[in-house]
Amino acid sequence: MGRPVVRLKDIADKTGFSVNTVSLALRGNPRIPEETANVIREAARSLNYLPNQVAKSLVSRETKTIGLVLTDITNPTLTKVAQAIEMALAERGYSTLFATSNNDLEEEKRAIAVFRSRQVDGMLIYPRSHRDLDHIRELRRANHPVVLLVADPDAGVDAVCIDERRGAYRAVRHLIDTGHKRIGIIDGGQRLGNLEKREGYVMALEEAGLPFTPALVVDPHGHSVIRGYWAMDRLMSAPGRPTAVFAANDSLAIGALRWTQKNGLRVPEDVAIAGFDNIEFAEHAATPLTSVNYETQLVTDLAVSRLLELVTTDGSLPDPRVTLIDPELIVRESSYRPGSA
Amino acid sequence: MGRPVVRLKDIADKTGFSVNTVSLALRGNPRIPEETANVIREAARSLNYLPNQVAKSLVSRETKTIGLVLTDITNPTLTKVAQAIEMALAERGYSTLFATSNNDLEEEKRAIAVFRSRQVDGMLIYPRSHRDLDHIRELRRANHPVVLLVADPDAGVDAVCIDERRGAYRAVRHLIDTGHKRIGIIDGGQRLGNLEKREGYVMALEEAGLPFTPALVVDPHGHSVIRGYWAMDRLMSAPGRPTAVFAANDSLAIGALRWTQKNGLRVPEDVAIAGFDNIEFAEHAATPLTSVNYETQLVTDLAVSRLLELVTTDGSLPDPRVTLIDPELIVRESSYRPGSA
Repeated sequence: MGRPVVRLKDIADKTGFSVNTVSLALRGNPRIPEETANVIREAARSLNYLPNQVAKSLVSRETKTIGLVLTDITNPTLTKVAQAIEMALAERGYSTLFATSNNDLEEEKRAIAVFRSRQVDGMLIYPRSHRDLDHIRELRRANHPVVLLVADPDAGVDAVCIDERRGAYRAVRHLIDTGHKRIGIIDGGQRLGNLEKREGYVMALEEAGLPFTPALVVDPHGHSVIRGYWAMDRLMSAPGRPTAVFAANDSLAIGALRWTQKNGLRVPEDVAIAGFDNIEFAEHAATPLTSVNYETQLVTDLAVSRLLELVTTDGSLPDPRVTLIDPELIVRESSYRPGSA
Repeated sequence: MGRPVVRLKDIADKTGFSVNTVSLALRGNPRIPEETANVIREAARSLNYLPNQVAKSLVSRETKTIGLVLTDITNPTLTKVAQAIEMALAERGYSTLFATSNNDLEEEKRAIAVFRSRQVDGMLIYPRSHRDLDHIRELRRANHPVVLLVADPDAGVDAVCIDERRGAYRAVRHLIDTGHKRIGIIDGGQRLGNLEKREGYVMALEEAGLPFTPALVVDPHGHSVIRGYWAMDRLMSAPGRPTAVFAANDSLAIGALRWTQKNGLRVPEDVAIAGFDNIEFAEHAATPLTSVNYETQLVTDLAVSRLLELVTTDGSLPDPRVTLIDPELIVRESSYRPGSA
């Protein structure tokens, strides 16, 4: 790396003043005579010198920077939360840096390591899996402020998140209440061990005395619209096809909806569909989509205030606290049949 | 900030060895006897010490970290590119940090300052406006590697981007070729001074000898689906409504499409619609959407290789180079009428 980025030393060499004098002059210290400061500033300008804040932050140890680890930067729900968090932190004088794990545990560890080496004051993390949290617990034990945005009640790390089990339960319960008995699930979390939505689905079935049918569970092998399309194709091609489908997120649900259009099925008359997250594309889909609402603002407010509580703690951090938010279901045309139930 | 994060000094205090010995032992230096190293490692473990890479990177000056500034982290096109860039850089051993300007010039400057203070090796930037680039040119003059992802040919900074003027021209030209004479534009870039798409629209009209009609130009005051919906409402409520509409991005186009559904208009028979970016939701919209394809992989490959060329340059950086990519139009049902043209 021999690229000549201009440093204080270069200005010192050019002007004959010491690095210390140059540094004081550029920070406007009154101890430096105005004439000297002018010579130094002029030299800095001619050399295209750009001041760097890092030295200052190394002294105060606070960088006023927070790191946010996303599993997938193309997921509209996560980026909506990321934006809200960035804005809430900016209001409080903090900058936010984002990194993504692409749903890979090693990349998640690397993203966390990068944030540590870049000395962020604290981190907000969407972990890849609810189950593999050892490396994050280790971070917490070493007194690093961290708040998870997805977790179980027994995470052992601070967390603020949507209760996905309850959300899924509400969606499936609503499909049952509107008369459905064969309900399929497009379950995107299975391979990562994120079983909460599946558990909510099973809970609602059991409560209603309906059998659990393995043929009604499909793994879309991904989270995108096209994955939802083909998962729906498999679900609807088997014998004993469902009359209602719950998809683990709205992109999958929109893919399922698209499949019904292509195959001439009416929604909700022939098949009802419900999604999760309530993204903008869901509300404005060809048939507006029933969806579990991800309470972006509430998650943001609680997560940011908890993180800053930890960041500004003197002494050891308090015991971890997990806050689960019970989400509401937004019922729209994709599942609601007037007159039924 | 009195929170006790464990440092090398704490391990030195606990074991009685010097900080230097502790540091060498934890890095596995063979000069330290195995027995001593064991004592030190054990103490580190019991204190929950987590090593930090920052000292190492301060010495080599390379951090193997790249900063990417997005205007809006909720824009699906930008996040798709961001993901591809992150993966391409990871393959080459670099980590990517993201920051967002939320389309605000001051926040853009702040994001760049944060990346500088966190000592990234280089930056990729979606600037808020094609016109306000002085602060980025200054960075370049100070020998910081930076590549823009949106720019004009005369940016004065390295850039790799879609030729938006050509893209818009192609979309509008296609609408003209399929028989339309009154073509509206939902133009999201106007207030930021991003006039390229508008210019492409005008270019196509002029070439075909069609008049420019101010009533057919609508500013949606944003980029989301709902903004597109209401922009379409204004466009279609005026006298002399258009028979075709070009929207500056696919979210706006999907909003326009939704308006036609709600108001009982057939697409493309009553009104044709074309968008820009070719996002996944466009392909799978109620009526699959004609759209200018954002060549994600090509932008990614060229931008990453140019940035790393700059990052690994010894000596002064080469002269800036702007690469504009001429995008293709993907024609789908929202604009194509069999038998016409």
